[in-house]
Amino acid sequence: MPEKTLQVVPLGGLGEFGMNCLALRYGDDIIVIDAGMMFPDAELFGVDVVVPDFSYLVDNRECVRALVLTHGHEDHIGGVAIFLSQLNVPVYGTALTLALVERRLDEHDLDEKPTLKEVAPGDKVEIGPFAIEFINVTHSIVSTVALAITTPLGVVIHTADFKLDPTPLDNKPFDLHTFAEYGKRGVLLLLSDSTNIDRPGFTESERAVGPRLEDCFHRAEGRLIFSCFSSSIHRLQQILDLAAEHGRKVGFLGRSMLSVTEIAHNLGLLQVPDNILLRPQDIMSSPADKVVVVVSGTQGEPMSAMARVAVDNHKSLSVRPGDMVVLSARMIPGNEKPIYRMINHLARRGSDIVYGSMNPPVHVSGHGSVEELKIILSLVRPRYFMPVHGEYRQLARHAHLAKHVVGSRLQEVFVMESGQTLEIDEHGARRGQTVTVGRVCIDSGSIDEVVEDLVIRDRRHLSEDGFVLPIITISKSTGKNETLPEIVSRGFVSFEEGSDLLRDARQVVSRTLENSSAEERGDWGVMQEKVRADLKRFIAKQTSRRPLIMPVILEV
Amino acid sequence: MPEKTLQVVPLGGLGEFGMNCLALRYGDDIIVIDAGMMFPDAELFGVDVVVPDFSYLVDNRECVRALVLTHGHEDHIGGVAIFLSQLNVPVYGTALTLALVERRLDEHDLDEKPTLKEVAPGDKVEIGPFAIEFINVTHSIVSTVALAITTPLGVVIHTADFKLDPTPLDNKPFDLHTFAEYGKRGVLLLLSDSTNIDRPGFTESERAVGPRLEDCFHRAEGRLIFSCFSSSIHRLQQILDLAAEHGRKVGFLGRSMLSVTEIAHNLGLLQVPDNILLRPQDIMSSPADKVVVVVSGTQGEPMSAMARVAVDNHKSLSVRPGDMVVLSARMIPGNEKPIYRMINHLARRGSDIVYGSMNPPVHVSGHGSVEELKIILSLVRPRYFMPVHGEYRQLARHAHLAKHVVGSRLQEVFVMESGQTLEIDEHGARRGQTVTVGRVCIDSGSIDEVVEDLVIRDRRHLSEDGFVLPIITISKSTGKNETLPEIVSRGFVSFEEGSDLLRDARQVVSRTLENSSAEERGDWGVMQEKVRADLKRFIAKQTSRRPLIMPVILEV
Repeated sequence: MPEKTLQVVPLGGLGEFGMNCLALRYGDDIIVIDAGMMFPDAELFGVDVVVPDFSYLVDNRECVRALVLTHGHEDHIGGVAIFLSQLNVPVYGTALTLALVERRLDEHDLDEKPTLKEVAPGDKVEIGPFAIEFINVTHSIVSTVALAITTPLGVVIHTADFKLDPTPLDNKPFDLHTFAEYGKRGVLLLLSDSTNIDRPGFTESERAVGPRLEDCFHRAEGRLIFSCFSSSIHRLQQILDLAAEHGRKVGFLGRSMLSVTEIAHNLGLLQVPDNILLRPQDIMSSPADKVVVVVSGTQGEPMSAMARVAVDNHKSLSVRPGDMVVLSARMIPGNEKPIYRMINHLARRGSDIVYGSMNPPVHVSGHGSVEELKIILSLVRPRYFMPVHGEYRQLARHAHLAKHVVGSRLQEVFVMESGQTLEIDEHGARRGQTVTVGRVCIDSGSIDEVVEDLVIRDRRHLSEDGFVLPIITISKSTGKNETLPEIVSRGFVSFEEGSDLLRDARQVVSRTLENSSAEERGDWGVMQEKVRADLKRFIAKQTSRRPLIMPVILEV
Repeated sequence: MPEKTLQVVPLGGLGEFGMNCLALRYGDDIIVIDAGMMFPDAELFGVDVVVPDFSYLVDNRECVRALVLTHGHEDHIGGVAIFLSQLNVPVYGTALTLALVERRLDEHDLDEKPTLKEVAPGDKVEIGPFAIEFINVTHSIVSTVALAITTPLGVVIHTADFKLDPTPLDNKPFDLHTFAEYGKRGVLLLLSDSTNIDRPGFTESERAVGPRLEDCFHRAEGRLIFSCFSSSIHRLQQILDLAAEHGRKVGFLGRSMLSVTEIAHNLGLLQVPDNILLRPQDIMSSPADKVVVVVSGTQGEPMSAMARVAVDNHKSLSVRPGDMVVLSARMIPGNEKPIYRMINHLARRGSDIVYGSMNPPVHVSGHGSVEELKIILSLVRPRYFMPVHGEYRQLARHAHLAKHVVGSRLQEVFVMESGQTLEIDEHGARRGQTVTVGRVCIDSGSIDEVVEDLVIRDRRHLSEDGFVLPIITISKSTGKNETLPEIVSRGFVSFEEGSDLLRDARQVVSRTLENSSAEERGDWGVMQEKVRADLKRFIAKQTSRRPLIMPVILEV
């Protein structure tokens, strides 16, 4: 790397959905913006989360100065624990962001306690050659900050995730003035959120959801059950306020729902009306029309509280006819099938379900639509533009939009995918060499188990412990498997043909199937997760090894 | 079955998406309405199509009098070949519907030539105790008919798939008058399409797409590439007319696109302007701004023409910067990921892509929204209502709507899933016994191979030929697999450990990977399909056996 070159190194989130991570390098100084995770899809069986490969940073560990976080969503902070296990540098973020990071760090044993440095919008910090100003933006999680990073070559603005909410629930507006000021003085490079580039117009304010939630309170005869992201503090605030107004008590279900609401409450970000909380064990004994339950698991994750409620397998809540279930969240692309499966189960319980595409929607996006993206482009009017946070189709469209909006002041746009780098010096900007990127799959144990240490399951690991494929044939009509499940394994030495261990393992799988309800057996997602959890526990106990377990369920 | 009982037996499409099939029985006479297929999702690896289990009909074969088809979509006719291989009864349908059935029958060797009986809207036929009137309705495929079936106990109306298009392109309106007349005289049971129960308001007319397609003609600088369902004759007509108007020639790509347009043209349902057609081999040699290409494969099916164009692997079309690609079709739930993958590939080719949720949409649904469903309920005002065509959540919501709309004239609604039966006699209606239903998976060979005889792969078959799992580890970043692929098999005797055949098979998979482009290797859907096709061909040639092949691709 020649001196006086600014290098932009996207390590995740460009050309893919999630696991956002981007490094800025000037000489021997590197700062990293966000370290997120990606939710694995069905193609990555048996894996809980996916984080970026941090090899580039590890290889340059003496240069890495800090990790700077924009907000507390998992696709921005879900990889922080892994990051810190490899790189012990200070972490900057707002109070809520750091609290959400700490919650996850508590689950892991890090060798050294990390240094967390709290910042607030308006703060400025200097890290090596970088002077960072934190700018308040509006998003579906509170305390989100954009970054204006002054470097020796000019200012780099990273928008974080944002929408232009003119009426945010906490009355802390998007700081357009600071964006305008930087734009006036001149910005070298803009990195802007591309999530909603396909949506025309403006995204509605979070407040627009209020009347629609209220409508649910008017219509519900029995229990009113909401599912939303636990990090949607403003959504939760609206539900709490409406519950107080309508004389209903509120119970929270799901681990993340319980811990995040507590964190937000402690930070003064969530106001909990007096005497409104209901303990999980009191939900079913309270009058149905006096109860609201807020449950985590909007995406149909098989072991989430909501998914278990759907198949009537949750100890604290049983859905009855007359209850209303409201899914107040987007469907993350790829999750449609498990979500619809969950909704079908809830419909079979006789509940009225409000979700997704219904009009008016009970959810608004946290990301700005095209007109909002145009405003940011117009305000910042950068010399170079590099769209972030999106698949290739979205980045390409955002780049096209920038050329259309900014005009001659914009010298060049760069549509980059993770691993492709941008180099800027006094002569201009150009594509640089590519760096190692990739996905590291992590298996942290099913949510119901005692949380175990992280085990990094990358290719090396796979070749050490091998993998195990339990193969189960379930009849779609009867929900039964008639023969003992097959187990196929490779590279996992303990499962020799004819061994007692293999025979016992098949019995374990068989028992899991027997102990599941017909409804559960009809839901391959739940069954995959249950089989995996039980078999993993069995193998770990018997052999102290942790092969990758990928249940294959054949519905016939 | 007691005499004088009307039995309604849904064999597919209730509580699931696709493979619509429903039997009506009175005494010893059964008629069957539609015999559709379901597109398998990723969970059913290695299977091409899924059709209902016709055991109930086969067990009562002496009673089955006819198969009555409502329209020519695959989810209503895709199982006809399998149906006829098990039950040789006359098939009733409109000219286009039967032509589309014949096209598929030509691909299979049936023992006896089936009897196809062409009907037109307004026709009445008597089949045993059933008098069927065919009623013209509007839908995304032309020549769709609803059925009014007069039985000894009263009239049963089956809406087929429909929307209330006030301005259909062929000026053949939805026959509201006949619906009104039956409603006036009294209808025993209504079976109505639930597909769009979640959509508020009215579905737009097919004509609404016209100006949006025209806008694409105005904006496209290079080639204009449309992808839509080959059965959307009206969509194709609009594209052909616009092409003529704008001086562009039209090439069709994809087997179904070529054969369906020919069928529709021969039946006088598609008007092809003079001298407009371009042969596939002439597409690339014609001036880009004088060309329209219509390509099948809207759902990102890995081996479809459009998916191959996306990875630049189609002999007749190569997408270049400046070309515009328009996906003029809905995303079928569950297909979002492969479709977005395809769009990302097309964006990497530098094309401008118009799709899905963009405003204004370049696609309108063929199914009626809530207000249309209400009109049909109001017109028919049946004594009993049983929603069809939908997952449980949709059926339940449609039933709820019916109670709200029809009022006291409606005695009862029945939310049924496939296999649950309804019995009606002079005393009323009630749930009857359940019958055997299920999914039968069919592997008909990849679209690029010479079409082979159908092989029914159900559980029996699986236990005969076993299954084979090629396991490939591809690095996401380098797109390479570093070791020889693993192959795991069960119940397939030819693959013994250490055998030459197994070693050769691993080489086959390895070669498939080597011969694929980096872009293809990055697309697990394409790779699964290619590995499967090559390995299947190899195994069939070497052993004459056809195990179920399910490639497992691990991206690391």
